[in-house]
Amino acid sequence: MSARVLVVDDILPNVKLLEAKLTSEYYDVLTATNGKEALEKVAAQSPDLVLLDVMMPGMDGFEVCTKIKQNPALAHIPVVMVTALTDAEDKVRGLESGADDFLSKPINDTALMARVRSLVRLKMALDEWRVRENTANQLGVVEKQSNVMMESADNARVLVVEDKNFEQRKIEETLQRDQDIVTITENGAKTMELVAAQEFDVLIVSLNLAGEDGLRLCSHLKSNERTRSIPIVMIGGEEDMPRIAHGLEIGAHDYILRPVDRNELLARVRTQVRRKRFQERLRSTYEISLSMALTDSLTGLYNRRYLEVHLEKLLSKNQESKKSLAVLLIDIDHFKHVNDKYGHAVGDEVLKIFSQRLLGNLRSFDLVARLGGEEFAVILPDVSEQRAWMVGERLRTSISDVPFVVTGHPEGISITTSIGAALIDHNQHTKHEVLERADKCLYEAKKGGRNAVVFEGKGKLNPDDFKEAQRQFIS
Amino acid sequence: MSARVLVVDDILPNVKLLEAKLTSEYYDVLTATNGKEALEKVAAQSPDLVLLDVMMPGMDGFEVCTKIKQNPALAHIPVVMVTALTDAEDKVRGLESGADDFLSKPINDTALMARVRSLVRLKMALDEWRVRENTANQLGVVEKQSNVMMESADNARVLVVEDKNFEQRKIEETLQRDQDIVTITENGAKTMELVAAQEFDVLIVSLNLAGEDGLRLCSHLKSNERTRSIPIVMIGGEEDMPRIAHGLEIGAHDYILRPVDRNELLARVRTQVRRKRFQERLRSTYEISLSMALTDSLTGLYNRRYLEVHLEKLLSKNQESKKSLAVLLIDIDHFKHVNDKYGHAVGDEVLKIFSQRLLGNLRSFDLVARLGGEEFAVILPDVSEQRAWMVGERLRTSISDVPFVVTGHPEGISITTSIGAALIDHNQHTKHEVLERADKCLYEAKKGGRNAVVFEGKGKLNPDDFKEAQRQFIS
Repeated sequence: MSARVLVVDDILPNVKLLEAKLTSEYYDVLTATNGKEALEKVAAQSPDLVLLDVMMPGMDGFEVCTKIKQNPALAHIPVVMVTALTDAEDKVRGLESGADDFLSKPINDTALMARVRSLVRLKMALDEWRVRENTANQLGVVEKQSNVMMESADNARVLVVEDKNFEQRKIEETLQRDQDIVTITENGAKTMELVAAQEFDVLIVSLNLAGEDGLRLCSHLKSNERTRSIPIVMIGGEEDMPRIAHGLEIGAHDYILRPVDRNELLARVRTQVRRKRFQERLRSTYEISLSMALTDSLTGLYNRRYLEVHLEKLLSKNQESKKSLAVLLIDIDHFKHVNDKYGHAVGDEVLKIFSQRLLGNLRSFDLVARLGGEEFAVILPDVSEQRAWMVGERLRTSISDVPFVVTGHPEGISITTSIGAALIDHNQHTKHEVLERADKCLYEAKKGGRNAVVFEGKGKLNPDDFKEAQRQFIS
Repeated sequence: MSARVLVVDDILPNVKLLEAKLTSEYYDVLTATNGKEALEKVAAQSPDLVLLDVMMPGMDGFEVCTKIKQNPALAHIPVVMVTALTDAEDKVRGLESGADDFLSKPINDTALMARVRSLVRLKMALDEWRVRENTANQLGVVEKQSNVMMESADNARVLVVEDKNFEQRKIEETLQRDQDIVTITENGAKTMELVAAQEFDVLIVSLNLAGEDGLRLCSHLKSNERTRSIPIVMIGGEEDMPRIAHGLEIGAHDYILRPVDRNELLARVRTQVRRKRFQERLRSTYEISLSMALTDSLTGLYNRRYLEVHLEKLLSKNQESKKSLAVLLIDIDHFKHVNDKYGHAVGDEVLKIFSQRLLGNLRSFDLVARLGGEEFAVILPDVSEQRAWMVGERLRTSISDVPFVVTGHPEGISITTSIGAALIDHNQHTKHEVLERADKCLYEAKKGGRNAVVFEGKGKLNPDDFKEAQRQFIS
């Protein structure tokens, strides 16, 4: 995939060299020759990747990188530090300032292109999600804009695929400094078993396993929908560079060269864990916004929209299965009076307790929704008339028999409810028709003095009849 | 990116050859030697790509492809037909049965790998969205599972970048058979102007432009966030194959070889347009589910959740700007009586008309929400007490002065409303506090006989005072 790359170096021939290499591979190249110009171009032209020289007069590369990564609007842009330094300490300093990778001068073309392609691909996958999160943010679904650098990298679950004892111990000891949970395995078969059974935040794969090709394992992991999104960090020697480049093509996220520097390992693992957690959070924002579309924020019950969609599905299921379902419309008696007398805060508490009592007296596959205000609906799929009757009566008494304990009223306040119910047979019915039928019964229950269940065609239920019915039903 | 590829051919050596080529590039390979086995493996193992031989005994490749593409659960899997046939008619038949591309035997390795990589990349981008649409579907946000083959490919907006007159005319005439809207341009600079100003569904780019490199243009288009998602079909000669392969790497979606076959052109353009429209619809599903989380389904007004999130934002803005805002709580008088007397359907009509009248009497940046049942809230940012008072009174009379014309009551029914209002200064306030203050006034308005506005600290407004205030305000 083509992309816009910003090349930053204070030495013009270096800029020109990188520009030529990238242009010949059909990247769009921007350039800057100092830190200030780099920051301006990052902000104004939103490149897909920044290749950033470390040693520059004035603002150096570390400072530029830190400024990019601390800005929530820019932090998602990958930064590769380009440096003559091979000192591991500088590498770690760069990674901790948020750089996504390091390239050493003189730049190896294979490594450069593999890196650029891989980071651009990762960025584009994240971009889709970031755009969505911005929308969710503007609409108030999520509280504030997130940023990959804000993610915690602690307590990561790391799976290490390495068959050399010495290397295993070194990696394990290093990662445990971050309280990471480290699992070690020696081959691909065991790895596939482990990833099928457990969740991991990052995989570290040796490219020098004795009996098999580590790249093949990476390819299996990336071909499997379940494991595709787990980041892979490859470990190999300098002589493995062509295979490492291939691994990045396949979809591995990063690599580290032997001998493994402990701090570099920690820094690279942290970067991957942060990125994965960031991506997971962006995804969950979507799930949250979906569930918000279908639930009532005060009580957590489904809302009217959900009820209507699912009532239609349940009605057509009912037609197929030749069974019956019951629709109950439930209204809290004199709820306006509760609000007026005790205030809205207490009114809200009553609605919450009321919802919990409904839920507590129903089966897991019964559907409960708050239609708005003090009105609720319950759908009982696959029930007999007898059973629907019993459930209605049980719901009524669960409300009336125990006072509602609310703030400022430890003695509890007395609440009752009226219920209208209709049994719907397996013929064709519209959702409006069945809700209307239950509503007529609810009206009867209200008119007849409240705190009552009215069943269609039966009139107001007599609690004594109910006890008799229950006795017969159980016997 | 690695992926799982299913190779289907009735001749075992052909299968083995493709398997070896793909395995050496670290793809996970599945194989099948007849149509039935192929369909079973597609369903059971969900590959990321199918390479499908056309000529097989029993069920041929066309039939297998049609069966995959007609199954909503499988249609997203890209299919490449592999064939000895070079007859354009067969190509078109394959593309019309839903195949994403054709490869001719003997298979050119460059073309094979470029194709596989490009189609796998497209699939993975779509997969993210498909998974989310499934969630939205299960929750009832969208009605039914969608399918790329169900998208219309008609009336596509096509931009053709070609500088040869003869080719321009041929492409234009061909596409106009599908009622496509065709724009023709001759160079990259004009192309960039056009895509900045207009929307296109697909771009057709010649790789044989006289004065410039068509691939460079593709790269610009793919580096630009605005144009990145528009599919590109390259046109070139047999001798351009290496550049075409590079173009697919860059992100172009498809290509067609000269001399351009009219039916093949139509079929390939249709495929791209369908895919783009499918992707756009998957995205809009997300936007819809977000807006569902924030609006009331009956009236289209914002819901309580949105009001609460934004009231908080408006309160802190108010503190900064040192201005005042007004909160109005609005309740329809005796609404239960409307429902009982006229039925719920008429009650819903009243709620809708009521909402429209509120909206019609407010500024575009005022916030109106339905809190539930017959209760509404209005926030007026940046207002004086005088102005808030006028708005409240205007809302009251807009309801009471004109009867509500509803089904079965052409003469209209009389509706009134009670309004409680509070002016919130620039000191610190919580949303609960300000809603409570307005609610107390609403209670006063109800107690005082309804059809009234009560302003905090002022008591019930006298319409005559209002007229006087309005006179003073205007003068």
